[in-house]
Amino acid sequence: MSSEISIEALLTRRKKGHSLEAPFYTSEEIFKLDMEIIFGRHWLHVGVEPDVAEPGDVMVVDIGKTSVIVMRDDDMELRAYHNVCRHRGARIILQEKTSVGNLVCSYHQWTYGQDGELLFAEHMGSDFDRKCRNLKKVHIRSVGGLIFICLAEEAPEDIDRMAAAIEPYILPHDLKNCKVAKTVDLIEKGNWKLTMENNRECYHCVSNHPELTIPLFEYGFGFAPDGTNPKRMEHAAKYDALVQSCHTSWEAAGFPSREVERLTDTTGFRAERLPLDGAGEAHTKDTRSASKKLLGSITERKLGALSFWTQPNSWNHFMSDHIVTFSVFPLGPDRNLLRTRWLVHKDAVEGVDYDLNRLTEVWEATNQQDADLVEISHNGALSPAYEPGPYSPYTEPLVEKFTEWYVGRMAEHLLGKQAPVGVAAE
Amino acid sequence: MSSEISIEALLTRRKKGHSLEAPFYTSEEIFKLDMEIIFGRHWLHVGVEPDVAEPGDVMVVDIGKTSVIVMRDDDMELRAYHNVCRHRGARIILQEKTSVGNLVCSYHQWTYGQDGELLFAEHMGSDFDRKCRNLKKVHIRSVGGLIFICLAEEAPEDIDRMAAAIEPYILPHDLKNCKVAKTVDLIEKGNWKLTMENNRECYHCVSNHPELTIPLFEYGFGFAPDGTNPKRMEHAAKYDALVQSCHTSWEAAGFPSREVERLTDTTGFRAERLPLDGAGEAHTKDTRSASKKLLGSITERKLGALSFWTQPNSWNHFMSDHIVTFSVFPLGPDRNLLRTRWLVHKDAVEGVDYDLNRLTEVWEATNQQDADLVEISHNGALSPAYEPGPYSPYTEPLVEKFTEWYVGRMAEHLLGKQAPVGVAAE
Amino acid sequence: MSSEISIEALLTRRKKGHSLEAPFYTSEEIFKLDMEIIFGRHWLHVGVEPDVAEPGDVMVVDIGKTSVIVMRDDDMELRAYHNVCRHRGARIILQEKTSVGNLVCSYHQWTYGQDGELLFAEHMGSDFDRKCRNLKKVHIRSVGGLIFICLAEEAPEDIDRMAAAIEPYILPHDLKNCKVAKTVDLIEKGNWKLTMENNRECYHCVSNHPELTIPLFEYGFGFAPDGTNPKRMEHAAKYDALVQSCHTSWEAAGFPSREVERLTDTTGFRAERLPLDGAGEAHTKDTRSASKKLLGSITERKLGALSFWTQPNSWNHFMSDHIVTFSVFPLGPDRNLLRTRWLVHKDAVEGVDYDLNRLTEVWEATNQQDADLVEISHNGALSPAYEPGPYSPYTEPLVEKFTEWYVGRMAEHLLGKQAPVGVAAE
Ligand code: FES
Ligand code: FES
Ligand code: FES
Ligand SMILES: [Fe+3]
Ligand SMILES: [Fe+3]
Ligand SMILES: [Fe+3]
Repeated sequence: MSSEISIEALLTRRKKGHSLEAPFYTSEEIFKLDMEIIFGRHWLHVGVEPDVAEPGDVMVVDIGKTSVIVMRDDDMELRAYHNVCRHRGARIILQEKTSVGNLVCSYHQWTYGQDGELLFAEHMGSDFDRKCRNLKKVHIRSVGGLIFICLAEEAPEDIDRMAAAIEPYILPHDLKNCKVAKTVDLIEKGNWKLTMENNRECYHCVSNHPELTIPLFEYGFGFAPDGTNPKRMEHAAKYDALVQSCHTSWEAAGFPSREVERLTDTTGFRAERLPLDGAGEAHTKDTRSASKKLLGSITERKLGALSFWTQPNSWNHFMSDHIVTFSVFPLGPDRNLLRTRWLVHKDAVEGVDYDLNRLTEVWEATNQQDADLVEISHNGALSPAYEPGPYSPYTEPLVEKFTEWYVGRMAEHLLGKQAPVGVAAE
Repeated sequence: MSSEISIEALLTRRKKGHSLEAPFYTSEEIFKLDMEIIFGRHWLHVGVEPDVAEPGDVMVVDIGKTSVIVMRDDDMELRAYHNVCRHRGARIILQEKTSVGNLVCSYHQWTYGQDGELLFAEHMGSDFDRKCRNLKKVHIRSVGGLIFICLAEEAPEDIDRMAAAIEPYILPHDLKNCKVAKTVDLIEKGNWKLTMENNRECYHCVSNHPELTIPLFEYGFGFAPDGTNPKRMEHAAKYDALVQSCHTSWEAAGFPSREVERLTDTTGFRAERLPLDGAGEAHTKDTRSASKKLLGSITERKLGALSFWTQPNSWNHFMSDHIVTFSVFPLGPDRNLLRTRWLVHKDAVEGVDYDLNRLTEVWEATNQQDADLVEISHNGALSPAYEPGPYSPYTEPLVEKFTEWYVGRMAEHLLGKQAPVGVAAE
Repeated sequence: MSSEISIEALLTRRKKGHSLEAPFYTSEEIFKLDMEIIFGRHWLHVGVEPDVAEPGDVMVVDIGKTSVIVMRDDDMELRAYHNVCRHRGARIILQEKTSVGNLVCSYHQWTYGQDGELLFAEHMGSDFDRKCRNLKKVHIRSVGGLIFICLAEEAPEDIDRMAAAIEPYILPHDLKNCKVAKTVDLIEKGNWKLTMENNRECYHCVSNHPELTIPLFEYGFGFAPDGTNPKRMEHAAKYDALVQSCHTSWEAAGFPSREVERLTDTTGFRAERLPLDGAGEAHTKDTRSASKKLLGSITERKLGALSFWTQPNSWNHFMSDHIVTFSVFPLGPDRNLLRTRWLVHKDAVEGVDYDLNRLTEVWEATNQQDADLVEISHNGALSPAYEPGPYSPYTEPLVEKFTEWYVGRMAEHLLGKQAPVGVAAE
């Protein structure tokens, strides 16, 4: 049975251009390694600065069994700590979001400052050394207002490269001066990698996303015509011309737009600003802006959508009027949580400047459609009859990039730095 | 702890005439072997031809994590395929029953013909070889209208012997011209073997099945008096005489009736037609037919009930007016699904020829009573205090046959062909 | 990962004065050992004699997967048997409480006498030896009306010492002539040891138990001032004087009161009678008796509360008018059942002599508060960031005694008799 094959062997024999072998999606053991290696040692997309807008604002983020306090201190700095009391281990912050002065454990009132220092612990006597009982820190970093954390002792340094490359794209959207209009949590009944693979292609869009394909062209997410259909070739060429012309005019107007693709970096990412169909303004059912107040100093509504993807767990869409961010949190080999946030200008007023339903309806529908696809994929992978199938080189090259990144990251930690992984498909 | 004893050792030391050691009922590991060996390499009873009566009719059957498409093609042939897309593994058919032309995967629309061939896969380029991406086949076989499938590469060949022996018994009931009047799924909270053991004896009937024992004599399912009770000896002798006389007259009328018992064959089975109490017509509360329309060309209502059992997972009752079939599908070491179907003549009209409640009430009540017994047996087997107890040689010989079959099948695959298994009880 | 460290190593390196390493709270494997060693070989507090007051009364107690029949026979003796039929292992008694003549298995009616002997088994033939199919016995023992059972072949003998030491404290409360006014089962979402640790200190009382701290002084459960707060020193000295004077007068009146502490014995226990605040009568919101009828021949309402703790799984409070008992039953590494019973004089009439809500409200609120603390502790222990923290030597010495007992008991069984366990904290 394949469950008896070691992960080392599975990594080594991974067939390039193909979906993974079943245990990568279904095994409890590999899930633990995913949490340890992928989610334990890489930068994770966990939220946005407006989640903790004010001094003392706290947001709790759970990465598997690791609970993290993300907070803004009174000096407006972002801080992150393990949500585990240094006395007898109780969780300190119990709500998902709250606002605090100090961090006080409810069990026996041990009290930590915003800098994580243990300020007060009653009944511990005069010999007790508070210094070695401070909260354990977690790396935290904002990239253009998107919050990333890393649970490892040493966080990957190439986040600097990502930040340098990507902030010019993001900053015009002025995320820090947005507000979260809505957050929705959706449980997807499949492995987190199936959720990511699903996100990395639009091969499935036409037949599964009636709402999303109003604004979205199916081209543009690694899509190229396979040469077998002349009509499609023509469409694709037309689309290509549109992209070129948009890029030229947007970049001239100060909005970096051309593809930057570093998906197989340790801190892998990709960005590109793409035109939208119809009025070309936003991911809405009528393709017009969802919010009247444009972001930052943007005055042009037809900015298309800047898509920014990060490995292992996010995608984000920046439009002229609103932003949608998606973070994936694994819950088990067969379940993950997709957290979606819609952001509008902080001064936009609900009911006046934007209608919440109009803002969110396209992605709420799309997310559920994708969750259903993830579930049927996961159920398929559970079958002993499942075997890896070929990704389309024309519509799924970025799925392969995700999978390649995953296999490479696992291999580096399990097999050593320069381990060759994967075999070419015959 | 017994969980540390190898299954090989447990098989070898199995005490004949006794229930199994606890791990056979409770261990996750042995459950996986059950699914691999018993349910993975034997013929399984999964339904009846009327489930897929028309061209294009599809029924999905889940054997553990293996999902199987059972369908009737446009040439009226039965077909079975693994319900796993050869692209990225999604389940193809999502409903339990439906009707289709081709088999189309909802994820990226790969399209398979009724013969399992991949007909269409967009965006795969001109190099792509569709031939090696057909649906994987599953063995399928109808025995007198009962559908059996086998998940193994090579299916046991002795199903031919079973078919030859049993079709003369079944065919007069003309199952193919029946319709499924009702299907009921019941989750039983116990190991599937406890459900089978429960079915293989009527020792428990008198005190647990007030409805069933109206038509059913407790004798006749491997029951023999133990010689300690003269009154019971007398009853049993009387019953024996009744059976003899029924067999003689039924067989003269063209209804094979005498016991055929091959329970320890690879494709193990047993059949016998037995008289019923009261009016002697059917498993109903008043022992009269449930449906006015008799099956096939049957004109005699008092045909008793032909019981046909198969290893590992079914029992079936054929009466002059209706048929009841039972398939057991394991869901985990501690849960199984019992699927019961009631069939009547396809021209019988509900409310006119039969009343659905009258048709089903005896077995609906009986199934629930048995499910309760299975649950308390399973809970008992979980206790460290449980140890195998003796089957009654007078009322449980066919339970022993089931257990012997199970142990023998497991041993053949785990210990090799002629491995002796089991030790005589001291 | 710590889950790969052997329990032997974890026991050996246990840091004294600190909470346990995470696997002791979270590992499935250690939970199984807890059930085998701690709950399988020690005396467990499972109920009170009034639970089975009358001849034939039966109570079923589940210790993990082991189901035990606790009953009173017609000679008024307490009996305990494994609730597993010796035929095919079915559970015999299905209700939590009932009353029986013989013990009859519902599956095939095997019938056992109150002495556990198999009296009747039909269809087993004349060769069948009933003698070797009696119910398996479980040790049972009443200590002052509290029922203890032990699942081991050989039960620890030092229960005699506990009984001798403790019955003088308990007997004046005449538990046998009480009735159970209410039993409440509460599922706590944490390891059973976290529930016990929570119970063994009152460091958390002031900030978590607004109801309980009306009658209860926070001192008195291993509490001593740490010398850093002069006002607290004064309070503690005052409390100490109160305890001394109460002890003197109560003992003179025939109520043993001074602390007896043998928490690290095999059958570990501790008892002390302590004064209550306010009117000093009972654990009620107004600190007055909950029941008008005092227990036994008690005439003095202000008897404070006698707390009697046993390892591994109980605490009990005896007051002049009522008794509250608590038994902890593990359900899994992350769940346990807390069963609380409130007892009053058997002649007390609800609505006349006592109000049920007044009787139970303090502990119902307190239990829920403690369950919440147990849950946040368990969630903390699940985090990879958790590490054992220091118990306060001033408020948590009895938590350390519990943990020391646990580690010692596990070590004796896993490492051998005199194994040294634990290392001093640096
Ligand atoms: S566990 Fe946090 S203060 Fe005790
Ligand atoms: S998974 Fe079936 S078409 Fe892609
Ligand atoms: S299992 Fe108890 S009588 Fe058969
Ligand atoms: Fe999608
Ligand atoms: Fe039955
Ligand atoms: Fe408490």
